[in-house]
Amino acid sequence: MQLYIGNQNYSSWSLRAWLIFAQHELNPDVIKLSLFTDSFYQTLQPVSPTAKVPLLIDGETTVWDSLAILEYVNEAYLNQCCWPQDRQQRATARAIANEMHSGFMAVRNEMPMNCRATRNVVLSEAAQKDIARIEQIWTQQMAHYPNQWLFGEWSIADAMFAPIALRFATYQIPLSDAAKQYQQTVLDSPAIQQWLTQALEETEIVEEDEAGEPVNID
Amino acid sequence: MQLYIGNQNYSSWSLRAWLIFAQHELNPDVIKLSLFTDSFYQTLQPVSPTAKVPLLIDGETTVWDSLAILEYVNEAYLNQCCWPQDRQQRATARAIANEMHSGFMAVRNEMPMNCRATRNVVLSEAAQKDIARIEQIWTQQMAHYPNQWLFGEWSIADAMFAPIALRFATYQIPLSDAAKQYQQTVLDSPAIQQWLTQALEETEIVEEDEAGEPVNID
Repeated sequence: MQLYIGNQNYSSWSLRAWLIFAQHELNPDVIKLSLFTDSFYQTLQPVSPTAKVPLLIDGETTVWDSLAILEYVNEAYLNQCCWPQDRQQRATARAIANEMHSGFMAVRNEMPMNCRATRNVVLSEAAQKDIARIEQIWTQQMAHYPNQWLFGEWSIADAMFAPIALRFATYQIPLSDAAKQYQQTVLDSPAIQQWLTQALEETEIVEEDEAGEPVNID
Repeated sequence: MQLYIGNQNYSSWSLRAWLIFAQHELNPDVIKLSLFTDSFYQTLQPVSPTAKVPLLIDGETTVWDSLAILEYVNEAYLNQCCWPQDRQQRATARAIANEMHSGFMAVRNEMPMNCRATRNVVLSEAAQKDIARIEQIWTQQMAHYPNQWLFGEWSIADAMFAPIALRFATYQIPLSDAAKQYQQTVLDSPAIQQWLTQALEETEIVEEDEAGEPVNID
């Protein structure tokens, strides 16, 4: 099983897919490609219809979207333990996972993931609204599961929000105590620590815009 | 069970969620709200964390995202018949459903759904790239399932692409024969015909920008 990812410093979608393997000690062959390089496209174009990361190839099965990879691994290798077993909780978990997968565009555009850099940026009203909604999600879940993952046990919802917890740290976003509690659970987890160690070892700097931000990462 | 939707003429995400009920003759109470009106927000804000449509309320369970609604109904009421039963096919179906759910932004921005109007617009390179990718998906699936749904039987992937089939008709997008074949399957289906009948009965015109396009629909 091959998991293709981008630079760990920058590629938040790669992190989301990678996490389900790390959380459950599955060991795919991880193939790391430098974003926006010729070899990135030369490697992916023959094997993926979108030439994006993350990409999972498992024998005859190719999965080229982060959430679809998470659903696939959950079904094929983890006996569906990565969504809440309760149907109502599972519906909530899928709703917030999909909210992240399809939305929060302002946060994604204005706060690209960069594990190495601590920054202060002036955020638009739209980004502030995104942050408030994410904070609300985390706070509500911590009311049910204090000091735990969003639904108690680790779930795909946690994979989706992990890069946000990292960004809120590097961009120094003030959070409610409950939201901070969740952020700390993410940051302290061995899987995230392992990702960060590998990200900090990287030296590539991807194409940046005039503000010094990497472009088109997320 | 209550399904909240927006104007059927405009709300492509409402259509996606509504379709699983129509395809399987489930009959939720459908509550139609006019987009961007005071009563839209007054109705949704007390019952939804995002105040968006579609929204499903099933007893104690609230689901506020289109793909999460589709997953929920598939699990709770349809014995999971709305994804391909084969694991590899299901992974492909989820990958393309998620591609639609999280992407094709140029098509969504430049070609908002408007069932009543036939239009010609000048499309950006990004929109043309989106169209080419969608055409590729449809063409590939028709090679496996000629004149059928994307995976033979109707699936959640078909719900996701139905508004695109409508747009490609109203925006008069030229398509390959295989892609046209799929588009025709969508357009001829009784559920889509029912939606269109109801859409064409509507008289509201939502807020439009200077180009006469409804804004913020999709």
